[in-house]
Amino acid sequence: MYRFSSDYLEGAHPRLLEKLIQTNAEQTAPYGEDVYCRAAADLIRLRCRNRGAAVVFVPGGTMANLAVAAACLRPHQGVLSAQTGHVNTHEAGAIEATGHRVLALPSQDGKLSAEQIRKAMLDYRGDPVREHTVQPKLVYISQPTELGTVYSLGELEQISAVCREFNLFLYVDGARLAYALRAEKNDVDLPDLAQLTDVFLIGGTKVGALFGEALVIPSPALQADFRSIVKQRGGLMAKGRLMGLQFLALFEDDLYFDIAEHANRMAQAIRQACREAGYPFLVDSPTNQQFPILPNALVARLSQDFDFSLWQDLKDSQAVRFCTSWATPFSAVESLAAAIRAGA
Amino acid sequence: MYRFSSDYLEGAHPRLLEKLIQTNAEQTAPYGEDVYCRAAADLIRLRCRNRGAAVVFVPGGTMANLAVAAACLRPHQGVLSAQTGHVNTHEAGAIEATGHRVLALPSQDGKLSAEQIRKAMLDYRGDPVREHTVQPKLVYISQPTELGTVYSLGELEQISAVCREFNLFLYVDGARLAYALRAEKNDVDLPDLAQLTDVFLIGGTKVGALFGEALVIPSPALQADFRSIVKQRGGLMAKGRLMGLQFLALFEDDLYFDIAEHANRMAQAIRQACREAGYPFLVDSPTNQQFPILPNALVARLSQDFDFSLWQDLKDSQAVRFCTSWATPFSAVESLAAAIRAGA
Amino acid sequence: MYRFSSDYLEGAHPRLLEKLIQTNAEQTAPYGEDVYCRAAADLIRLRCRNRGAAVVFVPGGTMANLAVAAACLRPHQGVLSAQTGHVNTHEAGAIEATGHRVLALPSQDGKLSAEQIRKAMLDYRGDPVREHTVQPKLVYISQPTELGTVYSLGELEQISAVCREFNLFLYVDGARLAYALRAEKNDVDLPDLAQLTDVFLIGGTKVGALFGEALVIPSPALQADFRSIVKQRGGLMAKGRLMGLQFLALFEDDLYFDIAEHANRMAQAIRQACREAGYPFLVDSPTNQQFPILPNALVARLSQDFDFSLWQDLKDSQAVRFCTSWATPFSAVESLAAAIRAGA
Amino acid sequence: MYRFSSDYLEGAHPRLLEKLIQTNAEQTAPYGEDVYCRAAADLIRLRCRNRGAAVVFVPGGTMANLAVAAACLRPHQGVLSAQTGHVNTHEAGAIEATGHRVLALPSQDGKLSAEQIRKAMLDYRGDPVREHTVQPKLVYISQPTELGTVYSLGELEQISAVCREFNLFLYVDGARLAYALRAEKNDVDLPDLAQLTDVFLIGGTKVGALFGEALVIPSPALQADFRSIVKQRGGLMAKGRLMGLQFLALFEDDLYFDIAEHANRMAQAIRQACREAGYPFLVDSPTNQQFPILPNALVARLSQDFDFSLWQDLKDSQAVRFCTSWATPFSAVESLAAAIRAGA
Repeated sequence: MYRFSSDYLEGAHPRLLEKLIQTNAEQTAPYGEDVYCRAAADLIRLRCRNRGAAVVFVPGGTMANLAVAAACLRPHQGVLSAQTGHVNTHEAGAIEATGHRVLALPSQDGKLSAEQIRKAMLDYRGDPVREHTVQPKLVYISQPTELGTVYSLGELEQISAVCREFNLFLYVDGARLAYALRAEKNDVDLPDLAQLTDVFLIGGTKVGALFGEALVIPSPALQADFRSIVKQRGGLMAKGRLMGLQFLALFEDDLYFDIAEHANRMAQAIRQACREAGYPFLVDSPTNQQFPILPNALVARLSQDFDFSLWQDLKDSQAVRFCTSWATPFSAVESLAAAIRAGA
Repeated sequence: MYRFSSDYLEGAHPRLLEKLIQTNAEQTAPYGEDVYCRAAADLIRLRCRNRGAAVVFVPGGTMANLAVAAACLRPHQGVLSAQTGHVNTHEAGAIEATGHRVLALPSQDGKLSAEQIRKAMLDYRGDPVREHTVQPKLVYISQPTELGTVYSLGELEQISAVCREFNLFLYVDGARLAYALRAEKNDVDLPDLAQLTDVFLIGGTKVGALFGEALVIPSPALQADFRSIVKQRGGLMAKGRLMGLQFLALFEDDLYFDIAEHANRMAQAIRQACREAGYPFLVDSPTNQQFPILPNALVARLSQDFDFSLWQDLKDSQAVRFCTSWATPFSAVESLAAAIRAGA
Repeated sequence: MYRFSSDYLEGAHPRLLEKLIQTNAEQTAPYGEDVYCRAAADLIRLRCRNRGAAVVFVPGGTMANLAVAAACLRPHQGVLSAQTGHVNTHEAGAIEATGHRVLALPSQDGKLSAEQIRKAMLDYRGDPVREHTVQPKLVYISQPTELGTVYSLGELEQISAVCREFNLFLYVDGARLAYALRAEKNDVDLPDLAQLTDVFLIGGTKVGALFGEALVIPSPALQADFRSIVKQRGGLMAKGRLMGLQFLALFEDDLYFDIAEHANRMAQAIRQACREAGYPFLVDSPTNQQFPILPNALVARLSQDFDFSLWQDLKDSQAVRFCTSWATPFSAVESLAAAIRAGA
Repeated sequence: MYRFSSDYLEGAHPRLLEKLIQTNAEQTAPYGEDVYCRAAADLIRLRCRNRGAAVVFVPGGTMANLAVAAACLRPHQGVLSAQTGHVNTHEAGAIEATGHRVLALPSQDGKLSAEQIRKAMLDYRGDPVREHTVQPKLVYISQPTELGTVYSLGELEQISAVCREFNLFLYVDGARLAYALRAEKNDVDLPDLAQLTDVFLIGGTKVGALFGEALVIPSPALQADFRSIVKQRGGLMAKGRLMGLQFLALFEDDLYFDIAEHANRMAQAIRQACREAGYPFLVDSPTNQQFPILPNALVARLSQDFDFSLWQDLKDSQAVRFCTSWATPFSAVESLAAAIRAGA
């Protein structure tokens, strides 16, 4: 049975593993203060064309998100997020355990709009008893979103502008950033993110690393003592170099992007098969996650040979999720496509 | 320059790395629910002769400690620890960020005694305004301690008895547990720990793993929803199998213990050299950390060729720490020993 | 200008004040361990026909709510509440600052139904990744609700039953409890609450006290160390007797209920005036808060002579709130009623 | 039996009570936004000769302390306090529940010195692994201290200077401030405090109020949203005017100081009696708390007629605490003095 249920089901891309093997016997400084972490951080700053950004490696996405919240927020402040945002759905209350409310706004396609953020701020400011409510201070968006959709540069610019107008921090969770950066019609690059955000995440775990995410922090206000906050939350790894090495492998040539291109291509093949078979989609995703709506009988049929996620129960049909990765072979996609075309 | 500054300066023991390489392409269930984590957990339960214990893998020691505190404590309760305890010294306030006070008790050798715990409880219970104070509820001890010393079975039995008498949780932080289990004169084994504690840690990061610690939870009261708490704190790794695989490698034969035996032997050679040269020790450690007190001139001399930790400034001399690991070659120890014997 | 904007705009009911004056010079034990607090607690237990309940006095409602959450919940657990619930709207993130998410469910009339709670629990239990989500554990309802509506005994029994089935704590926030207990058609009394809930609040601040709320805790599991949690949150008052004295005055005869009867009668007069003038209501409230929907012109007209809350902007009209108290004179209500009848 | 066990055993000074009675029927804006709170805040600003200070009233001392910690500190930062400091001893872990460590420094007389603070900062800055430790950021001192001792202006100036040098917030907990301001040899006044601190407390509960403390916040950085933080912690009282009224009564003439003068004089009479009888003192206190060391037999004898606190068990003798207040009659002090002179 081939699993399309996620993009973190295999180990590391072989080139990352190779780097770990080559350097295994070396002695380096612990806690991310080694030469490899420094080199990886330098490389990322270069790719972001931002010399002043801090780069901090953390083992996973929830850790990244809660550390950002802890660093950005005073006690009475909260996080604006789409209802579908990872911080609002699948982090077991990590933000709240850090003391802050997630202020969830409705979203059909996983995105927040600049207009929604503005309205939330005007509502807060206009509230005669705003001292009795949570103050929005951090905007959390995902690129791509949890539904695979992608913000355009224009949308990000508008969001960034409204954040600056209202003195909000803007954080882009890029746990799957590569897939957005290589999505069809994408017009956003790393320097854009470094310019428009206060902090953003370049995800590794879901893009071929064993583990590890790079938090890029252009905002000087957020850089101070950020590592102390990560340490306090249990996110400063003793052998931190493991993350530096993997990000070196991902960024010293274009591997980070090549992985995404492959996975996106595999995903688009699945999309194409669903389209041709006449199935609608929950959302239109140009990245490595596809959310077709399939009849129950077909879902049952496919489940015999493939593993994938049931996303939303629509009575006679199901929105499902197929997810591809660096490791997805074309043969598996072909089999899946054939099964979809064959129908129940 | 050879580094004796810690036991987590290299990558993984080759046999762990090998296991990761062999299984790299496999697809497995995420978040520690894969076959390797299950097999490793089973193996650990077997070694602990405790079928009912839960085993949860977390990436690092601070995460383990804060998750245990979060799982054990109600808001007004705190952690009894030796002043030297890791939770009290080098976790950037992780326990406090979880909402709880570390109640630090004085200790010369890194250990707490049953008598100290009993006294703390009698003081609390006898306090006419105890509602205005923090209630001790969790006892944190390290085996070996942060100073390399080791509790005897008798000491652990006494501590466990007093914890049960006063309805306290007992947690043994075994970030370096292997070194204690293989220390000269040690009379404690894994089944003892499983019987005497509510939760204990079998450390991987400092015993040859890339990362990863196994929390063993014999206490049914603590097992419930423990993984939710880990997830909430950002400690549930997507590719959780990486920890299962490494612990399989450590425990499917005696590798975990062999690593410790080697490192302990290397440390004892350093100890012997210091003794022969007439230098005293801060504490008497039978494990892989040695704390000799060396004259400043010798410290300066050794620093030219070796990296090690300055532990405590004693004016004309320094207590230093030398730490060995699975990777420490005998040749490096010989060089260090020779330099110590040679003097400044 | 007469203010109908809240029920806590005056000082204390004269009989409470009198009691404070009479006893002012006495010396008593601090922190609520005095004879008056004990007598008041005994009296409340008697009224609740529950000898085993703990009674803890706290200065205000937000303190009561956050202390209950702190006492009930483990870190990964959250509070089920109607979207309109006070913990979800006007406590500046107090529950989140205690580490927990408010799981808000939709409500038109301020109430939660047993069915909603059951569905939330089935959703949680059926979620294949529930370890990544917040576990509902405490049900928060208000009696009367923030919209003045009242649960019937049947509704409370159903909610209580579903809470016990799913092992949830049930907390009834009775900041305005008196008004519900004396509402027309009410069939719930204090012994019912003591039997059906784990903890409930008998509010004082909004029923004639200077300040002070009585938390009644029938559940033995919640009684342990509850005062420590209140102390830790800054809610244990040095001169705690002030609350004991006021609750004595409220409960040694029927003053608590008499206050409510007066205020409810005043509110019903306002309701009657609105009805007669043909204005609809946001909700149908039998208690001391009335939410008529008035044309903007009338709102503007009334604002010249009265203070009241603008509750919801409906474009051409406004849902407003009129609130009455022990101190509301009939003459003020008559003036308001006349003005409503007169129209813009 | 007369109680010398605390200064919060009676109700309010009659002039405060009178003010509450006079205004009881008035309707005012809630949550401290009424005319009385404004007038009291203005008066306090005037007395402090600081027009820019914010003044926020909170019901009690623990609330004040935890709100200040919450407002001042980022997650990895802690509070420097004398070991005897109230935040370190009798607040049930309130600071830790807010997420922060109390960094307790040794003190014999209840005071911190500028030198201790400087050393703590140099230690932190010089620590090669300071990212793994708690960063001191807030200095907590009490005036008078928990042992009744008083900082001189020179000492406060030195502490303030070192705080500014190291960019620390300075908070003076003045729960009993009046007694220090009127202590013999005191050379500190309110304008000094407003100039030297970032935030300080003018205590009411222990100086004749029913309840209520005034936080004076000269530091603009701390003023922002301070009330939101208080609301979130449950400390914003609905009938906030009660505190404004009481502080008006305390400060519209010199009542606040007169109360202290009386209580100090009563305490000095007790001190004199102990001295004359030849008993030593735990500390030399010029304020309303006296800590003589009395033989056990005398303690037993006095306990038959007086209530007071056993402070420290010294085997054959006890350090005890006698505390006086606005309400302490000279006759009671005379009786106590006579009993002390009479001996066991």
